[in-house]
Amino acid sequence: MGIVETQFTTLFEPPNPLTLESGDQLGPITVAFETYGKLSPEKDNAIFVCHALTGDAHVAGKHSADSRKSGWWDGLVGPGRALDTTKYFVMCANVLGGCQGTTGPSCTNPKTGQPYGLRFPFITVGDIVDVHVALVRSLGIEKLLCVIGGSLGGMQVLDWVSRYPDMARSAVCLASAGKLSAQGIAFNAVGRRAITTDPQFQQGDYYGSVPSKYGDVGPRAGLALARMVAHITYLSEASIERKFGRNLQHSDHLAYDLQSETEFKIESYLHYQGKRFIERFDANSYLYLTRAMDYFDLAQRFGSLREALGRTDARFLITSYHSDWLFPSSQSRELVSALLATRRHVTYLELDSVFGHDSFLLEIKQLEELLTPLLRETYRRYHGAAQ
Amino acid sequence: MGIVETQFTTLFEPPNPLTLESGDQLGPITVAFETYGKLSPEKDNAIFVCHALTGDAHVAGKHSADSRKSGWWDGLVGPGRALDTTKYFVMCANVLGGCQGTTGPSCTNPKTGQPYGLRFPFITVGDIVDVHVALVRSLGIEKLLCVIGGSLGGMQVLDWVSRYPDMARSAVCLASAGKLSAQGIAFNAVGRRAITTDPQFQQGDYYGSVPSKYGDVGPRAGLALARMVAHITYLSEASIERKFGRNLQHSDHLAYDLQSETEFKIESYLHYQGKRFIERFDANSYLYLTRAMDYFDLAQRFGSLREALGRTDARFLITSYHSDWLFPSSQSRELVSALLATRRHVTYLELDSVFGHDSFLLEIKQLEELLTPLLRETYRRYHGAAQ
Repeated sequence: MGIVETQFTTLFEPPNPLTLESGDQLGPITVAFETYGKLSPEKDNAIFVCHALTGDAHVAGKHSADSRKSGWWDGLVGPGRALDTTKYFVMCANVLGGCQGTTGPSCTNPKTGQPYGLRFPFITVGDIVDVHVALVRSLGIEKLLCVIGGSLGGMQVLDWVSRYPDMARSAVCLASAGKLSAQGIAFNAVGRRAITTDPQFQQGDYYGSVPSKYGDVGPRAGLALARMVAHITYLSEASIERKFGRNLQHSDHLAYDLQSETEFKIESYLHYQGKRFIERFDANSYLYLTRAMDYFDLAQRFGSLREALGRTDARFLITSYHSDWLFPSSQSRELVSALLATRRHVTYLELDSVFGHDSFLLEIKQLEELLTPLLRETYRRYHGAAQ
Repeated sequence: MGIVETQFTTLFEPPNPLTLESGDQLGPITVAFETYGKLSPEKDNAIFVCHALTGDAHVAGKHSADSRKSGWWDGLVGPGRALDTTKYFVMCANVLGGCQGTTGPSCTNPKTGQPYGLRFPFITVGDIVDVHVALVRSLGIEKLLCVIGGSLGGMQVLDWVSRYPDMARSAVCLASAGKLSAQGIAFNAVGRRAITTDPQFQQGDYYGSVPSKYGDVGPRAGLALARMVAHITYLSEASIERKFGRNLQHSDHLAYDLQSETEFKIESYLHYQGKRFIERFDANSYLYLTRAMDYFDLAQRFGSLREALGRTDARFLITSYHSDWLFPSSQSRELVSALLATRRHVTYLELDSVFGHDSFLLEIKQLEELLTPLLRETYRRYHGAAQ
């Protein structure tokens, strides 16, 4: 994909703030986003990627030539790839409430000159989608070729096509659900508790007067812990067993030492994941976004999944992953049943991957085989029809 | 069962300390235990109950007439119950390293006059069993009618019959395994991390100069968090869904308030579990006992499960629970295969309970139906043979 740059735009400027689902108003809202490929003159080749809980707008390519890290879905987005940037215009925006450039709790509240902290208004998946919609429309795009996302991104997809039923020609919902399970809420509750009971949390006002990297301030231990527990839920038991088993980190022999916190490889790996995470993520954003995830309940909002999903004519692709226990296949099947009951066009596959919930980020080849024909067919069908 | 009293005895007094698996020595060791029923003159009717991670010696009955709480397996132990105290002599001891009366990190080190804290030696399941064995023998009992336990208690059962193959006529291992899964180690690692990163942990020296209830001192937030995450693993997804679902705690309507930490019932329940736990458990004990659990690896110790379990002639009962994902049935089946391969007598059932790992504590009726004939038959067989 080559070198890409994050772009910024400001939406919902006075006197037109965004009215949130809670009834509160918020504005102005800065949105960080990236685009890949070229928007066609007819503006009919746009694909919007919705990122997951801790993702960002940087889907593909690199930010500089010497950067070692590519975007989080680099294998899927680029010339000749499933989201083929020689044909399609692909875009992704950091979510509202996030910490990668879009307005969130770590940003300065223009009214006070101080970071929002916990004074940031409560946000929902619907609010996140409203900002995406405004961004898309600000580029003059009325209808997307596809809206796609996994996990919390998949929730955004479902919300989007239910509330803006004419805005997408196809919708791809990966490893997601119409609502988070009670077990999922439970794990989120543990993560939030780890953050809020960390003495460095200070009721969310931990930013200090000098802007700094997140990792330097705030509830580091709590946020790392939240990530550790979440990370376990992203993996399958089988993948942990296969990758780490009971292998030891430093030696062939057990140390019989309680102070050794990373005796088994899996412990060391989790500590590493926690440590890496706090360098790139804001604890307050974690609180807000996990709550948005808890709150999402498509059937409750529309009366039923049928009512919600029957509103759109978008062609659906839904996948779940056999080893994903955070968003089990049964939940995807509920979406499929609702779509079939309203005679919508849906392709559903339960994919056989060992990687648990993370599969949608890792099993690129499988996705490519499904996405390429879906996008080609959708484009051909509607492009032809428009002529 | 009526009123019971915890008894105390001191073992491994100088000059005869216990040599631990790590090579360290520990003594004297106070053991808190309870007994129910009467030991027969032939001392051939004794059943030893091994408790799980956070259990204690108080299996049945009440400590006082006005106590509202019965022992943790009260439905299983008593006159006419599965572990029938009109026939059998039932005993249970708090584990080494625990905090309910048996020597552990919160006890005073007689050599220094200070609590052990993290200076307490590293202990294993084998060390716990060695103390149980010494206690049993101190009562003049050479052979148990049965040794029984679930989870970490089941690990004690497996270790016991492998290392003391002539000491039990039957062995009951519930919801357990020959080793903890890597996922289980991962969850334990998160729990320990929650404790050790709590600033109140103070490297384990949080007891203060005045003896106090655990809940008043130490890493309260961290220990509560450890319990919360562990508690999720003890429940099944289905039981959480059935009991709590997405029901709200205080209202019919979502609050759209980030400060509300217990909006969903499941959150409130977990916070309550965490809070209750810190009133009765010591954080250092949690560190030591979860490590003992991580370390347990029967096959590794003996070369294979066959080698370990083929050493005894005990009759086995093994159960797993369909909804238990912490100790999945596949692990129980490995034990059964090893027993069958060495032509041992084993009854195995995968029981259909919704309660996940906690099933062995809750599904009393199922257990009763299995245990009553096992104990009767074992007693009849060996009692007859001895005459």
